[in-house]
Amino acid sequence: MYAQLKRHLLKDVDFNHDEIQAFTNLLSHLKLNKKAVLIQPGNTVTKEYYVLKGCLKAYYIDEAGQDHIIQFAIEDWWISDFEAFFNAKPAQLYVECLEETELLGLNKLDLEQLYQTIPKFERFFRLKVTKAFVALRNRVLSGLQNNSKARYKEFCEQYPHLEKRIPNYNIANYLGMSPESLSRIRNSI
Amino acid sequence: MYAQLKRHLLKDVDFNHDEIQAFTNLLSHLKLNKKAVLIQPGNTVTKEYYVLKGCLKAYYIDEAGQDHIIQFAIEDWWISDFEAFFNAKPAQLYVECLEETELLGLNKLDLEQLYQTIPKFERFFRLKVTKAFVALRNRVLSGLQNNSKARYKEFCEQYPHLEKRIPNYNIANYLGMSPESLSRIRNSI
Repeated sequence: MYAQLKRHLLKDVDFNHDEIQAFTNLLSHLKLNKKAVLIQPGNTVTKEYYVLKGCLKAYYIDEAGQDHIIQFAIEDWWISDFEAFFNAKPAQLYVECLEETELLGLNKLDLEQLYQTIPKFERFFRLKVTKAFVALRNRVLSGLQNNSKARYKEFCEQYPHLEKRIPNYNIANYLGMSPESLSRIRNSI
Repeated sequence: MYAQLKRHLLKDVDFNHDEIQAFTNLLSHLKLNKKAVLIQPGNTVTKEYYVLKGCLKAYYIDEAGQDHIIQFAIEDWWISDFEAFFNAKPAQLYVECLEETELLGLNKLDLEQLYQTIPKFERFFRLKVTKAFVALRNRVLSGLQNNSKARYKEFCEQYPHLEKRIPNYNIANYLGMSPESLSRIRNSI
């Protein structure tokens, strides 16, 4: 049993011991090194991943070869190429470890069966995806506002202490600004 | 009973007659004129809305007074200021009718109670918000690709025939391009 995952589950839904156990039984444990690539474009994506420890980035490489970070994931976050996972399409994203990382993988077919036997997990994942949707919409909105300082502050709230763990250029890329602009903003706060 | 809504519900989940009836009983019917404003910044947003007929846009006005269209909604779509609705925060968006519009409003507290009595609605709305999340992520990705023609084609697939119903400058705004660029793309297809 994973105490951290149990807390994560109980934050949103009042699961009992057996329900948590049924969920935990479905998970596969993964240990990955820094720079390991979990998903790459073209992959079939059958799992989403809960982060026990470590840090990952999901990014897209455009036709010009430029990379764009779409999401970070730290402890207690879920990560995958979600379009590939939900819609059974080939992956478009890379998902890569920025630190030594421990994950719990959840298979889509197992999850579908779990929904049938314990419908409370419908609620849990409805709440999770709703939060992800609102966070993404906020990111789109704050990108439109063109206020770099506000965007950086939002980033620090969303990913506490992450700025001490990963290179500046990754954060600048995620925020859509140059590393120099990011340094200026940090110095001004 | 609304035949269109019934089809919409049954597309994803196998509801029985009583379950559909219980859902329909919660809905309030609204008729709005073209240009009517359903939501504006600062509003408390207690409802999300299913579009029976018509067309709306959700948009954000930045500090410089520039508007940015975040979402359109046509028949069979849901619209609201979702962050305000889900997180009980004041609205940041405007939601405005682009045509004469008929909506069915669903109150958040009623929906929370429905989840308790008929958990199948957890599944229905989990699937809905998952689709919205994936669509938004796709929009972010296709914005990064900087391929205007592909973006326009995606728009036409997502909102069939909408380009015949609303002014060009609204579509150009949503796609983040000038109306002139949009005309060039249309002529080249």
